[in-house]
Amino acid sequence: MDTPRASSDFDGLELGFDIPARPGMAAADILTPALVLDLDALERNIRKLGDFIRARGLRHLAHAKMHRSVDVARLQMTLGGASGVCCQKLAEAEVFARAGIPEIVITNQVVDPFKIDRLARLPQTGARITVCVDDAANVDVLAEAAQRHGTQLNCYVELDIGMHRCGVATPAEAVALAAAIDTAPGLTFGGLQAYQGVMQHYRTASERQAAFDTGLELVKDTLAALTRAGLPAAQVSGGGTGSYELEGNSGVFTELQCGSYAFMDADYGAVLDADGNRYDAGKWENALFLLTQSVSTHGDGRAVCDAGLKSLTTDSGLPLVHDSQGVTYTGASDEHGKLTDPENSLRTGDKLRLIPGHCDPTCNLHDWYVGVRGGVVETVWPVSARGRSY
Amino acid sequence: MDTPRASSDFDGLELGFDIPARPGMAAADILTPALVLDLDALERNIRKLGDFIRARGLRHLAHAKMHRSVDVARLQMTLGGASGVCCQKLAEAEVFARAGIPEIVITNQVVDPFKIDRLARLPQTGARITVCVDDAANVDVLAEAAQRHGTQLNCYVELDIGMHRCGVATPAEAVALAAAIDTAPGLTFGGLQAYQGVMQHYRTASERQAAFDTGLELVKDTLAALTRAGLPAAQVSGGGTGSYELEGNSGVFTELQCGSYAFMDADYGAVLDADGNRYDAGKWENALFLLTQSVSTHGDGRAVCDAGLKSLTTDSGLPLVHDSQGVTYTGASDEHGKLTDPENSLRTGDKLRLIPGHCDPTCNLHDWYVGVRGGVVETVWPVSARGRSY
Repeated sequence: MDTPRASSDFDGLELGFDIPARPGMAAADILTPALVLDLDALERNIRKLGDFIRARGLRHLAHAKMHRSVDVARLQMTLGGASGVCCQKLAEAEVFARAGIPEIVITNQVVDPFKIDRLARLPQTGARITVCVDDAANVDVLAEAAQRHGTQLNCYVELDIGMHRCGVATPAEAVALAAAIDTAPGLTFGGLQAYQGVMQHYRTASERQAAFDTGLELVKDTLAALTRAGLPAAQVSGGGTGSYELEGNSGVFTELQCGSYAFMDADYGAVLDADGNRYDAGKWENALFLLTQSVSTHGDGRAVCDAGLKSLTTDSGLPLVHDSQGVTYTGASDEHGKLTDPENSLRTGDKLRLIPGHCDPTCNLHDWYVGVRGGVVETVWPVSARGRSY
Repeated sequence: MDTPRASSDFDGLELGFDIPARPGMAAADILTPALVLDLDALERNIRKLGDFIRARGLRHLAHAKMHRSVDVARLQMTLGGASGVCCQKLAEAEVFARAGIPEIVITNQVVDPFKIDRLARLPQTGARITVCVDDAANVDVLAEAAQRHGTQLNCYVELDIGMHRCGVATPAEAVALAAAIDTAPGLTFGGLQAYQGVMQHYRTASERQAAFDTGLELVKDTLAALTRAGLPAAQVSGGGTGSYELEGNSGVFTELQCGSYAFMDADYGAVLDADGNRYDAGKWENALFLLTQSVSTHGDGRAVCDAGLKSLTTDSGLPLVHDSQGVTYTGASDEHGKLTDPENSLRTGDKLRLIPGHCDPTCNLHDWYVGVRGGVVETVWPVSARGRSY
């Protein structure tokens, strides 16, 4: 836990200065609650996945839905060898395209005619744009829009390999859709998306292996059917932080979509690798923290901090306290977190680092990442696509 | 459910046009997911609470933590007779002070020295600023900052009347703190804050009454002790949407802090009034909706919509589907909502209105409110203090 200095130097954090920190200041002085990135840990995570994909000749489209940050995406390209990013929403993709990211896969359906019109204009930024499709009527609207703007949209047929959310269920449906895309002007059939989000969080490697094997059969059958139909899939895209070794070593998948590995969170920390070790026991480092401050202590084993439901999400469990010294986060209200502190070690004003339960929706609550190295603020990055959920 | 037109008129929603709607357009064409305000219902809710406080000569500091919107706050002042707003965080208060809101009560402790410095400058905007205190050391730092800037900060002593979060626990502690405030240069002792957040959501009126009665004894004892000490409380501030009639009719509380009544949500809808009727059965109207679009249907009793954990929160339960026609929202992932639709009534592209489970953290996810009247977009308001949680 960091104890901030009782500073009389307020010149840099003026009224109306809406960022939580400035480069060069002590990490202990960051205004709370704030997202803090351990830049050393972040870079190590990014290099590690980069080594994995390079060794196998795979492509990596880093899922930017997790961080929504152009700066982190650039790091994933320069240090980690990523070809570009995945996005879930059109409005996210617009941010990354405008920032010059050269390749963007929208791992989702875009069905609104207004959104499709905007989607069809995105290749004009120079980015290669891919979108997922699971419905024949959607193909017609996409093609019409691409023709209207004289652009080319790459399309993946989404295959439902077990998540039962979007996607077609059978090789026959996939072939029919691929054929429709292939003959539609303005569209290119680019391959398959086969992603199973739920299995990413299965705790044991054997559970993930079983779920993967089930899905893999459908992927293989679909690829064979596509080849027979004269529509071979150029890419097979999928995989996440929980399952990437399975896709990456399958010889079937060509493109990984991992995102959370870069920051990690409490939920992924509890995932076990093939040796039964927790993910956070060395495989991936926690690079993302929520810095919070104790605002009320009572000397009776409890304290209150300034990070609640507007600074973190509880959908995947409560945050962990990093370097906790016996302190635990036990409940979130809108702007407060309840802490138990059996040894009454916290004083009012003390700061502590939380490991968020779920990185993606937590990052989306914030406007800034404060990048820290060696106890000093090195950089402040915007959460570039925050709130761009349409 | 609204079915959007298949429009070829895209001129108003350009690439890079980052708002989900424009005034004058059909409500059915709003880009999803988006927060939609039923302006008629909003105005009726605001007038109704205004009638309640005026009839009793009470003050209302509308809790702006709920909506974080300067425009809604102005409506609460002009239509509802509110004197100003409550805020939970310094950064929120800065937004409302700069916007010209004349009175702001920060219903929370501000302990960071950087934040206290900014707090002490806020009265320079012309706003009357009140802050809560539960710690004697905090009084000294507040006074020092107010003197540094030549301003006056009004202080409420926060009393813990049963929430066991912040606040002092006994009349003696409250008197000691009030005396310290009273003698501190730059500070004014303004009264008590006595707010119990948990009881707001108790389902039955008798549960709320019991919790209120327990807290009221401590408030009365504390007021008596303050008067004996020559430190009478000018204001007794508290109350929320679940309990406001108890505080408002108590003859003890002078100031209400209700916020959620203006928008409502699924959780407050299930609260029962003294007659055993649900709050949403006429007492308060749902004015806040999350407009979402079906993006994938399967003809097998399920569908997927485009609103997940980045567009709504699930801490108080899943959203309800308004005018549901048998459709229910059954699960949220980051960007998707799962719907069950036994009659397969939804087609891909259909839009539907959700009633969020919990309005405060849901509003904080969005950048815009789309105000609708008679099926037409009348206004688009920014969520002025979104993300300002420090």
